[in-house]
Amino acid sequence: MGSGAYGHAPIATYKSIIAYDGTDFHGFQRQSSNQRTVQGEFEKALKTLGWRGRSLTAAGRTDAGVHAQGQVVAFPMDWNHKAERLSDALNANLPGDISVYQTEIAPEGFHPRFSAVRRRYHYRILLAPISDPFRERYASRIWPQPDWEIMSEVAAQFVGLHDFGAFGRAPQPGGATTREVFQARWHSDQDERRFVIEANAYLNKMIRRLVGAMLEVGTGRRDSGDVLKLLDDPASRWEGDLAPPRGLCLDGVIYED
Amino acid sequence: MGSGAYGHAPIATYKSIIAYDGTDFHGFQRQSSNQRTVQGEFEKALKTLGWRGRSLTAAGRTDAGVHAQGQVVAFPMDWNHKAERLSDALNANLPGDISVYQTEIAPEGFHPRFSAVRRRYHYRILLAPISDPFRERYASRIWPQPDWEIMSEVAAQFVGLHDFGAFGRAPQPGGATTREVFQARWHSDQDERRFVIEANAYLNKMIRRLVGAMLEVGTGRRDSGDVLKLLDDPASRWEGDLAPPRGLCLDGVIYED
Repeated sequence: MGSGAYGHAPIATYKSIIAYDGTDFHGFQRQSSNQRTVQGEFEKALKTLGWRGRSLTAAGRTDAGVHAQGQVVAFPMDWNHKAERLSDALNANLPGDISVYQTEIAPEGFHPRFSAVRRRYHYRILLAPISDPFRERYASRIWPQPDWEIMSEVAAQFVGLHDFGAFGRAPQPGGATTREVFQARWHSDQDERRFVIEANAYLNKMIRRLVGAMLEVGTGRRDSGDVLKLLDDPASRWEGDLAPPRGLCLDGVIYED
Repeated sequence: MGSGAYGHAPIATYKSIIAYDGTDFHGFQRQSSNQRTVQGEFEKALKTLGWRGRSLTAAGRTDAGVHAQGQVVAFPMDWNHKAERLSDALNANLPGDISVYQTEIAPEGFHPRFSAVRRRYHYRILLAPISDPFRERYASRIWPQPDWEIMSEVAAQFVGLHDFGAFGRAPQPGGATTREVFQARWHSDQDERRFVIEANAYLNKMIRRLVGAMLEVGTGRRDSGDVLKLLDDPASRWEGDLAPPRGLCLDGVIYED
């Protein structure tokens, strides 16, 4: 029974689904400097609740300015109440730009990164001639309209198993650059466009490069063939635009079962 | 012809409709201290374009944290191009949380505050048990659900010509506290509620007090009669909650004709 016999739950690994507005963070990952990060703020809240761990783990390390609606973090914790109350306690101690949507005890052997089989992101674009202070925190604005048809055609070519080495480096030096894309599609809603991509994993800044490449094609600055020939050619490099981080959001992470 | 004969437009008064995310401003009105204000940033952008005025005028001085979708400002300006190009030039010089939607030459004698006949504001509420980092910048969250029916009944009583002296001070010391409310209504959209109010003018923090009072009634903390008896009784004071500024937004200003 361990310490459970004394009314204490044994240390379990908890899994939380969290959301954050990435604008005012220097990315997800805690840094040695004093810069504000999502991980740093989350661990601070955990410590307030008695956490004595050294580091939480996360499904993905989003870059500075990138948002999340469904980031997944895990941490071992000695918690004597229901998991939902841990969510409440965390929310009470977190700043307004991070929120815990759900907390539960993780399955045996769970790791938010290694157990993940798919990650879905979206990239949001505002189509407007004039800036909109209420939406541009979460969207990149373009005007005039690009050619969405050709951009959708390019997006469709990203689906499948491809070597995306031209669009980013592997997170580990020398790591494989092949990724499987299950979905890559532009959605339209009034004056907004949303690129939704679901893949097993991504290379560094890969989505922002893919969106940047599609926008260059859509605005006639580059031929679609110039982008598509970079696919499966890891010796080449996308040298064009990266879409700005503020349009990007980690929608959710999918685990087996 | 004045200086127009030399290809220069004479100084005209321009009127701009502007929007801003109030979160990172210490209100609209320029302050003697170095605090960031909407007026201060706007005048800085004007100066970059050669403006030599002393002060712009505005339809309403929104408080710290209050947003605007349709604030109206006016300023005299020596501008040798079309008014739309003044919008573009201002937008190019303004920070991302202020935007100019439209600029035109104001009618003779126009003053954004004194010429206004109605101002419309909304107050946005998010109904959710858990905080939402993407919407709470522009909404106040409550949970559990209050009684919207009784809140709508209270709102309906605000319509008409009333002395709102119990809900705020006049902007000018000793000024009249009677205001005419043309519309005061709760709108519902999925997990959001929006209180829309249109009046000739408002007292200081009046809308936040009215919303605070309705929420106290809706959550059963106060009887609707206790709120309604304050109407037309300027000797009394609303001593209860003020709704937080982040849910409030100046929607638009209506001028004669």
